[in-house]
Amino acid sequence: MTMPHQDQSALFVMDGVKGGHDGMSYSNPKKFRKKKQEVLDIEKLANDVRAGDRTALSKAITLIESSNTEHKEQAQKLLQELLPYTGNAIRIGITGVPGAGKSSFIEAFGTMLCKIGKRVAVLAIDPSSSLSGGSILGDKTRMEELVRQENAFVRPSPSAGTLGGVHKKSRETMLLCEAAGYDVLLIETVGVGQSETYVRGMVDFFLLLVLTGAGDELQGMKKGIMELADGIIVHKADGDNLRPARRTMQEYKQILHFLQPSTPGWLSTALSVSSMEKVGLDKVWDMLMEFEQTVKKTNYWNIRRREQTRDWFHSMITDQLIDSFYGNPERKQQVRKFEDEILHGRLTVTQGVNALFD
Amino acid sequence: MTMPHQDQSALFVMDGVKGGHDGMSYSNPKKFRKKKQEVLDIEKLANDVRAGDRTALSKAITLIESSNTEHKEQAQKLLQELLPYTGNAIRIGITGVPGAGKSSFIEAFGTMLCKIGKRVAVLAIDPSSSLSGGSILGDKTRMEELVRQENAFVRPSPSAGTLGGVHKKSRETMLLCEAAGYDVLLIETVGVGQSETYVRGMVDFFLLLVLTGAGDELQGMKKGIMELADGIIVHKADGDNLRPARRTMQEYKQILHFLQPSTPGWLSTALSVSSMEKVGLDKVWDMLMEFEQTVKKTNYWNIRRREQTRDWFHSMITDQLIDSFYGNPERKQQVRKFEDEILHGRLTVTQGVNALFD
Repeated sequence: MTMPHQDQSALFVMDGVKGGHDGMSYSNPKKFRKKKQEVLDIEKLANDVRAGDRTALSKAITLIESSNTEHKEQAQKLLQELLPYTGNAIRIGITGVPGAGKSSFIEAFGTMLCKIGKRVAVLAIDPSSSLSGGSILGDKTRMEELVRQENAFVRPSPSAGTLGGVHKKSRETMLLCEAAGYDVLLIETVGVGQSETYVRGMVDFFLLLVLTGAGDELQGMKKGIMELADGIIVHKADGDNLRPARRTMQEYKQILHFLQPSTPGWLSTALSVSSMEKVGLDKVWDMLMEFEQTVKKTNYWNIRRREQTRDWFHSMITDQLIDSFYGNPERKQQVRKFEDEILHGRLTVTQGVNALFD
Repeated sequence: MTMPHQDQSALFVMDGVKGGHDGMSYSNPKKFRKKKQEVLDIEKLANDVRAGDRTALSKAITLIESSNTEHKEQAQKLLQELLPYTGNAIRIGITGVPGAGKSSFIEAFGTMLCKIGKRVAVLAIDPSSSLSGGSILGDKTRMEELVRQENAFVRPSPSAGTLGGVHKKSRETMLLCEAAGYDVLLIETVGVGQSETYVRGMVDFFLLLVLTGAGDELQGMKKGIMELADGIIVHKADGDNLRPARRTMQEYKQILHFLQPSTPGWLSTALSVSSMEKVGLDKVWDMLMEFEQTVKKTNYWNIRRREQTRDWFHSMITDQLIDSFYGNPERKQQVRKFEDEILHGRLTVTQGVNALFD
């Protein structure tokens, strides 16, 4: 139901894709114009992302990461537009202790992939963040060669306030990169306990970078990380370090043999690589291709992805439940009060919980 | 405010510790009598438990495990009475794959402890449950010697419907055993993935039983269990198996050296034991005593227990939130609907969650 009106906003409304606007007044024409433009922007942004425009992709990721309510709505609209074009990349998680050379590996490996025609998107840890353990030389010297590649897209994330550089929006960022046509996704994370399990839950292949000296390396490792890995790379296998690196690789192969495989049907293995001399990078790609072939054959590839999506959904439900529960300041205070009573032995845990929910 | 009344129930009410019964009618005297008796019972039960009466302790555990609403209230009342007398035992979790000989170890170790004057309570897996991996000879031949000891209390739990024989009430059962004066608690669990992490979260010391052949053994092991262990026992170190068991023990010691300790300040170690020949059991007790001394010195003993109680409280809150969310059948149907939409790529995960909570 449109009414004749002199104001331009009315024309916008009449042009609108969705004509129904019952119950709305024309008293705020500016709001209407704004709304209309934003709808167009999201569509354009979606198209630009799909066309492989890197600036558009950056903008889209920023929108996804925004905590502004209006942005959140737009982000979901954008993501829904792009959903049909997602899922076609191989998703690779890369972890390792600080100093293992994650960024130099990604730089060398990504550049090699670009040169053989792959389109590579990297979710990297921002080295300017003090906790990341990244290069102290700053962002500019990081992945210098890779960012110059036409087929590469590097998105740095601050590790502060996140789980080892990975956060709740990383999964959605991955989907955006896939819609933009990237076929290899490298997700960097620094080992901070839970981040590896989290990243394992969103990738197809989980790669662990280590240095020579299996003992020392294992010593510093968080629990169970090795068992999450589909592949281990003994890094910096160059110069005097070449022989020890080969030996370490053998040691890891032996240990991996004892552990349960991270991916059913795939025997996790170890390789030695020099990113500086660019030796062994092709073997890493061969391993990934063999992995993809093996795991797609059993259909576990799709099964895992469905499971990951389902788990994501249910863990977001749980997060939401916990957030709204603890988000209430009065409730929070009550929790603290009961916690105190329990820790002082005046109340059983069950009594505390029952009292909270009464 | 008591009123003269001919019915006997009135006398009960007048005798009641808590006299106030405003708003209640005398139309159901039987209910009143029942209430009164139960109040007395809980107090008596608490006293009997504290006096070390094993029948009372059994009854108390059954009450704790009951899902009847009235029983639940009584159970919490009982537990609160007993709370001041808890916390004085060493809590030991015992795990291992089926066939590792958990029950024969507990039988031999527990009996030895009783003979040196310790009071030992065992939360054991009921072998009549098919999933337990326990003896097929049935309950009677299990821990036969131990149950005859005056200082022992053995409580079997069905493993069906529980996490490897351990369930949500096991923590409260432990508290009851402590109130009853038991100073060593042995909590048996069979490895079913998450049960070990769960048990690790409720004990001071986590003991892993393995057999010879570290490779095979590790192969069958769930992820990360080894890293949870404070000690590993290579079991059945007797006869022809003695030498291989010693070798395996050395292998485990080496592997443990590579892993992060489960308890800060304590270097997890391996021992070889024969429960049949009763060899090495004293070494296990020495290890436990050394552990207690070491960990109490740094105060981590208390810190961990407080953390465990706090975690227990918050995980019960989360459970309660999830239960009430999914417990609603309408909600459950909605979740399934949105899950379907998401898995078919028609909705983003965030949209699905937002729609659910709107």
